[in-house]
Amino acid sequence: MKNNSPGHGQPKISFRTTVRLDDCDTVQEIIEATGYFTPAEVGVAVELVQDNMTKGAADSGYYFIFAELEGRTVGYVCYGPIPCTVSSHNLYWIAVHPDFQRLGLGKSLMREFEKQVKAAHGTRIYIDTSYKTQYEDTRAFYQSLGYELDALLKDFYAPGDDKVIYRKLL
Amino acid sequence: MKNNSPGHGQPKISFRTTVRLDDCDTVQEIIEATGYFTPAEVGVAVELVQDNMTKGAADSGYYFIFAELEGRTVGYVCYGPIPCTVSSHNLYWIAVHPDFQRLGLGKSLMREFEKQVKAAHGTRIYIDTSYKTQYEDTRAFYQSLGYELDALLKDFYAPGDDKVIYRKLL
Repeated sequence: MKNNSPGHGQPKISFRTTVRLDDCDTVQEIIEATGYFTPAEVGVAVELVQDNMTKGAADSGYYFIFAELEGRTVGYVCYGPIPCTVSSHNLYWIAVHPDFQRLGLGKSLMREFEKQVKAAHGTRIYIDTSYKTQYEDTRAFYQSLGYELDALLKDFYAPGDDKVIYRKLL
Repeated sequence: MKNNSPGHGQPKISFRTTVRLDDCDTVQEIIEATGYFTPAEVGVAVELVQDNMTKGAADSGYYFIFAELEGRTVGYVCYGPIPCTVSSHNLYWIAVHPDFQRLGLGKSLMREFEKQVKAAHGTRIYIDTSYKTQYEDTRAFYQSLGYELDALLKDFYAPGDDKVIYRKLL
């Protein structure tokens, strides 16, 4: 990959917060490529993009940050303020295309996301995820970034599939 | 009140699951009359009705049951399946107009709600609420109906305002 070639050092990531028409396809492609999600989950991920495009970020409650490498969208986060809370935010989705994983893009996206939440006077971030073995790396990733386990809801997603809620104070 | 007059016995409640144009105003009136909610929360409650009217119940994810007493809408619940779960449902909102409280309408609405969730093959119900003293009656109400405390998220809503999550298996 170009970004590993000598002299390039860190890959040149840029962030984009405006949602474009082609982001529905891009998000679907990224999410499917990860191999992590069920078709229903892919549908939900795409719906959040559509909701943002139809109503705007503020009215939909879904904000996006896209990570671009040399013009190609290779990852994103979807987040938003939690209704009826003073300053709590939720991370709804984070995904990086498998061809571009292990370059620190996920971590960069998380840092940018936390920056945006702080700028919006957010003080708490919540992340829901599954407690299944499949998500062990995901949980380790959040923990490495200072997210702490706040609650566990047994069998929430399905029998044998618990939900865990992580929390970070900004 | 008529429904307490001799010979009437229990008030004659009927349930309605289709959303009408005037339900935005009705929901706003009921929610405001309870005196429980902030203007922002009233806004969110009305938004859920609008979302149902714009997209339909299935696409919005917000289902409604209205309780009517002699043709007047006096209470309602808003609920829906939780995305990315197999059979978990959330109760988003329940409110009964204060003029018609203490007639068992809340309990009847909850029973009808559970019936509908069961009919939709739901097996678990989750309810989020505040741990503030103001909501003590609300929590006692859920507990009396078999809902159990599943998790507590400290300071979730605001400093000093924790969220509690109740759960019932159907």
